[in-house]
Amino acid sequence: MLEKIDHIGIAVKDIDQGIKLFKEVFGIEPSLVYESEYTKAKIAFFPIGEVKIELIQPTNPESVMAKFLEKKGEGIHHVSLKVKDVDQSLGEMEKKGIQLIDKKSRRVRENERVAFLHPKSTNGVLFELIQEG
Amino acid sequence: MLEKIDHIGIAVKDIDQGIKLFKEVFGIEPSLVYESEYTKAKIAFFPIGEVKIELIQPTNPESVMAKFLEKKGEGIHHVSLKVKDVDQSLGEMEKKGIQLIDKKSRRVRENERVAFLHPKSTNGVLFELIQEG
Repeated sequence: MLEKIDHIGIAVKDIDQGIKLFKEVFGIEPSLVYESEYTKAKIAFFPIGEVKIELIQPTNPESVMAKFLEKKGEGIHHVSLKVKDVDQSLGEMEKKGIQLIDKKSRRVRENERVAFLHPKSTNGVLFELIQEG
Repeated sequence: MLEKIDHIGIAVKDIDQGIKLFKEVFGIEPSLVYESEYTKAKIAFFPIGEVKIELIQPTNPESVMAKFLEKKGEGIHHVSLKVKDVDQSLGEMEKKGIQLIDKKSRRVRENERVAFLHPKSTNGVLFELIQEG
């Protein structure tokens, strides 16, 4: 059902500092840097093999990510798992007792749909399911 | 310098429950399950694409992982980055201002050497460097 780990999302206070770190210390150029109206955040993706690191700096203090940063500080926010069909996977997982944050997938970028599982069901890890299309 | 993300380490209270979750809900069989004398933990690896998920249940209440679990609860403990030569990477990263937890690599499994970077330098993420051999 899982194709691969798509990305690891990291909440950061200052995305320019984070971008500098990944470029200079880890030697990786970002594949995408943009500001998301949808999630109210500045975002940068860094490919490492088949996985991407996503840096996320909230731009709205009322956003979920801003509250995460305030409460927990910088660090890993979620792990995104690539699946063929998010809604189908949500249905299968719910039947197996997994608590869902999103009952249905939603579009976050032009060609991507996502949904989150509740970390209570998954060893404290916030997993996102993601599909292309 | 970074070849790929080798694995994502998740601290769990009950590895049997975690193994059941990954098998039944995510449909993945573990590639390795063992008890580590070195890290005082029960460990299970689940391959997803080129990355592995590592479940870690501490077996000694005095271990670093047991203290992490006590303080933070279940969740992601570290992200492991595959490099050619851990000690060479440590040297290069230290020159670039990265704080190290381990000044030198150490052996954790027969064919693997690792070292940890300090999360203060890396956006709150505990990165491990890992090499084969």
